[in-house]
Amino acid sequence: MEISILQKVRYTYKPKLPASLSGDIRDIALNFGEPTEAISDQEALKDIFKHTYGKPLATFTKGTMAGMGAELKVALILSGGQAPGGHNVIAGIFDGLKKANPASKLYGYLEGPAGLLENKYIELTGEIIEEYRNTGGFDIIGSGRTKIESPEQFAASLKNAKALGLKAIVIIGGDDSNTNAALLAEYFIEKGEDIQVIGCPKTIDGDLKNEHIETSFGFDTACKTYSELIGNICRDANSAKKYWHFIKLMGRAASHIALECALQTQPNVCIISEEVEAKKMSLEAIINQICDSIVKRADKNENFGVVLIPEGLVEFVPEMKKLISELNDVMAGHEAEFAALHFFEEQLSWLQKKISADSYQFFNSMPPQFAKEFLADRDPHGNVQVSLIETEKLLISMVKARLSMLKQEGTYKGRFSALGHFFGYEGRCAFPSNFDTDYCYTLGYGAFVLIAGGLTGYISSVKNLVADAKDWVAGGVPLTMMMNLEQRHGSKKPVIRKALVELEGAPFKTFARQRDAWALETSFHYPGAIQYYGPPEVCDQTTKTLQLEHIK
Amino acid sequence: MEISILQKVRYTYKPKLPASLSGDIRDIALNFGEPTEAISDQEALKDIFKHTYGKPLATFTKGTMAGMGAELKVALILSGGQAPGGHNVIAGIFDGLKKANPASKLYGYLEGPAGLLENKYIELTGEIIEEYRNTGGFDIIGSGRTKIESPEQFAASLKNAKALGLKAIVIIGGDDSNTNAALLAEYFIEKGEDIQVIGCPKTIDGDLKNEHIETSFGFDTACKTYSELIGNICRDANSAKKYWHFIKLMGRAASHIALECALQTQPNVCIISEEVEAKKMSLEAIINQICDSIVKRADKNENFGVVLIPEGLVEFVPEMKKLISELNDVMAGHEAEFAALHFFEEQLSWLQKKISADSYQFFNSMPPQFAKEFLADRDPHGNVQVSLIETEKLLISMVKARLSMLKQEGTYKGRFSALGHFFGYEGRCAFPSNFDTDYCYTLGYGAFVLIAGGLTGYISSVKNLVADAKDWVAGGVPLTMMMNLEQRHGSKKPVIRKALVELEGAPFKTFARQRDAWALETSFHYPGAIQYYGPPEVCDQTTKTLQLEHIK
Repeated sequence: MEISILQKVRYTYKPKLPASLSGDIRDIALNFGEPTEAISDQEALKDIFKHTYGKPLATFTKGTMAGMGAELKVALILSGGQAPGGHNVIAGIFDGLKKANPASKLYGYLEGPAGLLENKYIELTGEIIEEYRNTGGFDIIGSGRTKIESPEQFAASLKNAKALGLKAIVIIGGDDSNTNAALLAEYFIEKGEDIQVIGCPKTIDGDLKNEHIETSFGFDTACKTYSELIGNICRDANSAKKYWHFIKLMGRAASHIALECALQTQPNVCIISEEVEAKKMSLEAIINQICDSIVKRADKNENFGVVLIPEGLVEFVPEMKKLISELNDVMAGHEAEFAALHFFEEQLSWLQKKISADSYQFFNSMPPQFAKEFLADRDPHGNVQVSLIETEKLLISMVKARLSMLKQEGTYKGRFSALGHFFGYEGRCAFPSNFDTDYCYTLGYGAFVLIAGGLTGYISSVKNLVADAKDWVAGGVPLTMMMNLEQRHGSKKPVIRKALVELEGAPFKTFARQRDAWALETSFHYPGAIQYYGPPEVCDQTTKTLQLEHIK
Repeated sequence: MEISILQKVRYTYKPKLPASLSGDIRDIALNFGEPTEAISDQEALKDIFKHTYGKPLATFTKGTMAGMGAELKVALILSGGQAPGGHNVIAGIFDGLKKANPASKLYGYLEGPAGLLENKYIELTGEIIEEYRNTGGFDIIGSGRTKIESPEQFAASLKNAKALGLKAIVIIGGDDSNTNAALLAEYFIEKGEDIQVIGCPKTIDGDLKNEHIETSFGFDTACKTYSELIGNICRDANSAKKYWHFIKLMGRAASHIALECALQTQPNVCIISEEVEAKKMSLEAIINQICDSIVKRADKNENFGVVLIPEGLVEFVPEMKKLISELNDVMAGHEAEFAALHFFEEQLSWLQKKISADSYQFFNSMPPQFAKEFLADRDPHGNVQVSLIETEKLLISMVKARLSMLKQEGTYKGRFSALGHFFGYEGRCAFPSNFDTDYCYTLGYGAFVLIAGGLTGYISSVKNLVADAKDWVAGGVPLTMMMNLEQRHGSKKPVIRKALVELEGAPFKTFARQRDAWALETSFHYPGAIQYYGPPEVCDQTTKTLQLEHIK
């Protein structure tokens, strides 16, 4: 395989492991704490997870384990969107497995959970693993978004896992996929099968996070990549002095990415969805906040700037949330009727009869090109595809309209030219930062030790991540401990609670303390590209979010 | 100033200089070759550049010069779009100037040539320079696109330069700005003033290039930044296996950026404008070429891929070029009449009467949302703003239409989902790569030596750039040597000839030799982020374009 120079050189990088996982793998054992409880809905969860509920926290320690060294077959699944470092989780599992017993085998189910359901897999040999060490992407076996939900899917999972003779399955995924891992672990025990299931916390969104999971892997690298680009654009804005750049950033539910990038680059404005929801900020209020910065900077003859917008914003603005929900309701069951309307005007009058007057008025107030995005290409369930709404352009258009009004009133004297950007796919498959490279390898290596220790329904966990890797505290956390019940598709379901941006947390408060100054002054920071080499302060720092969360 | 960690660490980087410029600056002298000739139109150019035409090439050598060590005032201008390394050109000039005589002063005109015309400048002190060493952007003094064209502008330039007591002006810019430098140099002599003008070759587009200018600065860093992102997207495509990514890349006239990025990342398709023009490829032919790759890959169940598109493509497709030219003609003088038409249908019927039947038919065949982009927001001269046309989305839309036809015919059996991207602003202000850091510093240092040697109408030049910096050959090239006459706004004007992609050159031929394989197979390369530290093969390589052009 012909490869890039960086890839070739990255192969030689040796991921760091915490002290507890260094040394001979046969000298590693598990240390258990007290039984645990779910974060809420304990009784209901105890009932759902009869065999796996309430297990103790596990950490690694010196010692021996009966299961270590057995010949095992382990398979893994990459689930959901890509995140830098996935290949290193796999390399960590592989190395642990082969060190414990070279005859053990690692398999990879192809293209996500669908591979398990359809029994499509490959053996991950040393030769294959060598090609993917310390690289980005999930291309080693592909990823997918299929969920294991129906009884038939659970049965197929068991059948295929048994057929392959698996001792364990590792599911590398976000909150949903790890919830799935917990359900699968419980299901296997219930069916009397000794097939363990271990999860690994993956998502660039950074919203799989709690007391025991300090950060999900990939968040560090993705945010650094976006911050590189945002910083470059900030510098461009400050050099050309003629554009306002509106940059939308991936992250549907939580605004961790936008917040981290704001802390790294100090833009003039950064909208945080969680704050919009908490304060019930209308779209108008958001537009006014942005215009306030533009007007004040124009007074200083600085007709340029940078605005960060989280991808999921539209779902948090009260009137948009309401509109989207009403549209979803009204479309469900009326797809054919709606599809017969070919002109926007027809669609408008159809909608006027179906949705609330408030929502109709709001819908009608949007520039038609954006209103149309709410109606176009709905997903298989008839839902509005929020990711297709060009929020950055919608905001530009509404800001422009507001500024013309302010100009007429005489309160705005600047000139406004704006450009929109969307960053997401640019960062999900970057070469993992040294942090993610080490963190993921540790997660994978630890996942194997949890398997050797006979655990199931656990997620691999590494704590104390702001310290040197040697001082990281690795172990396993019972998945049920991170769960509660939430309403999903009409009924209460056990799920891992998503970690949203906490408005009382240090990262947001640090941002909030400085943003008024940033709105006015040009305070841009230019982080530059991720460095894999060089002085440690350049190549081994993790995110500001993680650092701030560790200041107690 | 609070700054990013990388910026802080980059301050300590010491740019490399070629041997001829190392050592004591008072031991550097100029070595002259034979008189030179323009590339064509020699007689006419000799007439325009009476005092500056035909000067000899200059290189640096050991020796002494009368002018070295004098107390001088020098000013500089950053002209046009940003390119990584501009700050280092300035640092190079500053260091040369101060080494030769610490009492000499460097000034920076603010926001481009407009600063010279409006006499807005700052003194660039050591304290200011220290803040910008080895950083990206042009924010030290800003940049601008004003051209010095009218007799009044030339007079104002002279007046302001004299008032400041300047010995020389350095213009850091692209082909147009360096043409301007040549004209200004000639004008000052004609007016009997001893104010020298020296140019520096800047543009990320890479189209200021010839026998003596091997590459313009910024091309290296910008292409590496775009290639990082394209590589990441390639890896994402190959992991998720569900999207075709259509990526538009900055570069209006020449496709050097697209070509270099293709060589670095090996996408499935890369369109080169120069080839489209040479082969008179219609839009349909381009769509067919893209669809050919999509269909063949779908046959292998690979319903994903990456397509690179140069920003300026629409101006090279024969029917689009014709349409744009007709639209520009018809709009000129009819702005008010056209502006009165508020509906697209009205605009259509108005246009039908004004443009050729061919162009009208083509215009009408485009999806309306894109057709509208040809009519929206024309520039101050009434011209279509090509940069606002979302070529990547237009191509997606037309590819989609073509694929449905092929599906009906039964020749296409895949599924097609596509995403559009545009990369430009992301790369113009990146921290310069080590190559651009060293190259720019050398260009600036050399520019000062040319000034000390009393030269005017020269561009600072560094050759042998694929060798180690110590072996680079630095000197000055008479600007007239790079010029010819071209039709501009109705009359023949002296200009520096733009270097387009040569279809017989090694970079294009290397690409052309491999592209059929890339169209079919997944051959992506993942270059990763620019590295400033690490093994030399990772952090000190220059572009594939430059390397291939040096294989003779």
